[in-house]
Amino acid sequence: MFQGIADVVVMDSPDRAHFLANLKPGGKYEGIVGTYRHNASAEHIGIFDREIIEALSTSVKWIAHNGAGYDQIDVQACKEKGIIVSNTPGAVDDATATTALYLMISAHRQYAKAERNIRSGQWKSGLYSGNAHDLTGRTLAILGLGGIGLRLAELARAFPMRIVYHNRNKVETAPEWAEYFPAERLDEMLAIADVLSVHVPLRKDTENFVDEKMIRKLKKGAIIVNTARGKVIDESAMIRALEDGHLGAIGLDVYPDEPEVNPKLLDFPNATLLPHMGTETCDSQKKMEVRALSNLKDYLQKGSGNDVVPELKTLARASL
Amino acid sequence: MFQGIADVVVMDSPDRAHFLANLKPGGKYEGIVGTYRHNASAEHIGIFDREIIEALSTSVKWIAHNGAGYDQIDVQACKEKGIIVSNTPGAVDDATATTALYLMISAHRQYAKAERNIRSGQWKSGLYSGNAHDLTGRTLAILGLGGIGLRLAELARAFPMRIVYHNRNKVETAPEWAEYFPAERLDEMLAIADVLSVHVPLRKDTENFVDEKMIRKLKKGAIIVNTARGKVIDESAMIRALEDGHLGAIGLDVYPDEPEVNPKLLDFPNATLLPHMGTETCDSQKKMEVRALSNLKDYLQKGSGNDVVPELKTLARASL
Repeated sequence: MFQGIADVVVMDSPDRAHFLANLKPGGKYEGIVGTYRHNASAEHIGIFDREIIEALSTSVKWIAHNGAGYDQIDVQACKEKGIIVSNTPGAVDDATATTALYLMISAHRQYAKAERNIRSGQWKSGLYSGNAHDLTGRTLAILGLGGIGLRLAELARAFPMRIVYHNRNKVETAPEWAEYFPAERLDEMLAIADVLSVHVPLRKDTENFVDEKMIRKLKKGAIIVNTARGKVIDESAMIRALEDGHLGAIGLDVYPDEPEVNPKLLDFPNATLLPHMGTETCDSQKKMEVRALSNLKDYLQKGSGNDVVPELKTLARASL
Repeated sequence: MFQGIADVVVMDSPDRAHFLANLKPGGKYEGIVGTYRHNASAEHIGIFDREIIEALSTSVKWIAHNGAGYDQIDVQACKEKGIIVSNTPGAVDDATATTALYLMISAHRQYAKAERNIRSGQWKSGLYSGNAHDLTGRTLAILGLGGIGLRLAELARAFPMRIVYHNRNKVETAPEWAEYFPAERLDEMLAIADVLSVHVPLRKDTENFVDEKMIRKLKKGAIIVNTARGKVIDESAMIRALEDGHLGAIGLDVYPDEPEVNPKLLDFPNATLLPHMGTETCDSQKKMEVRALSNLKDYLQKGSGNDVVPELKTLARASL
């Protein structure tokens, strides 16, 4: 893919110290102009925090991140250093929205407990149809109508569910059946929601965005689904609302301290829990890889690539 | 609901002997003209087999069954005795099709194993995205396009999946994007299917309908989903196909000897298993109850009710 365009240096540092040392003049990574980054690298060298960004040579101009969420990269430090960051937003929409749909069905139907029941020889014991609901006709509130939220809206509309959403701005390209609730009407949206599905990226200002107050604005028995990032929800507030029965069920693919999972979550019969599988299909992994590498290639060949993250769009335009 | 129309006698026999004794002249159930039946009664008095049907008084003219599947009633014996049987077909479509969709997503994404992983502290261990697929663009083959199959088709079309189906007859009311494969082209349909979802009722002629031969016509890695009845599939043939890797995954809500579950099924990491939860929502339970009781009420008031099962339609027409 990069033949004749650039030399490819494989990042094989076993730890952060090795990585930082080799970023220095004379090191293995000297002169690098762009970086392809996968979250898996964090297992060896840690996340791309300010320390790593500042240690990058001034030759580095582009970080092509593989993934929709880029909370493992300090974009403010990148901005200060003039490094552009791209992600792979569209590539994950289908797989992640399907995960949200799965969690939503499971939470409505007590299927996580049902599956544990059958595997422990308990058949339907403790499963009451009075606690289970059809999705049809219920109201799905989408928090953050980006690509994933929009895709979930389409899938849920097939039942149909009523689709309402909150976003910083009204999404002009959204279908007319998706009802917009601006910030001043957020409480109103929460009060009518049977399910709240979270699709906002993790940023400083979205940490604990779904807090005690927001959770309590939901009607009793409401369901929360999260396929975005664990830290967007105040986990202890959510657990309290499960304990006192305010929430009817939850479906989670993400947690504040992955791969650690708060053991309290495992005790709730009405919790469906996945180990961050939102993008785990061969189809989306391929799409993400192609997108991330294409963004890097475009930068190398044309001086700019696609999918620049919002925080760096101004910088990207200025550097063209 | 029956006030001023009929006297309601509650069936509270603890066992079959008590039930049969009370059907006799002078017994508690003497003079009954119609019966509302729920599968739960089988736990006490057993299924409505020939013995029970023949013991019913000649005054009984209508059995209003609560449920779509009526394999627990010997309809041939009913026919011989001039008893009409109604079921509740439409009421279960939404809940059961949603269950099939859930099983289909779980089977595509390894979510049954993923959930077991997180609960045993193993996070993503042993889960490979190379084995997981998006549903979008894949081919769903529906075996039996009745109300449930049609509803699943609509939900799966939202991705979209390609929808193909086999039925005894072409369904004229089916949407034009649902491609019909008659018996002589069944093999062709199986060869292109990524998922085979079973929606045929259990009858003498559909027992083991999905047999070794049919399973082997599916492509390697195909998925089987069953929310109809366990006996429609040859279970041992299906297990062999899982063991040798011909089938990629299965999603089952039904089993040949419920509530017994073949323990071999529990060993497959790629099996999602539910304890017959297809209709278990408060919404569909309510719809089923209203339908079954309305059918009985209609018979009592008008001499005929709706939802007569196919085997008894001729009798129902003749008795009007």
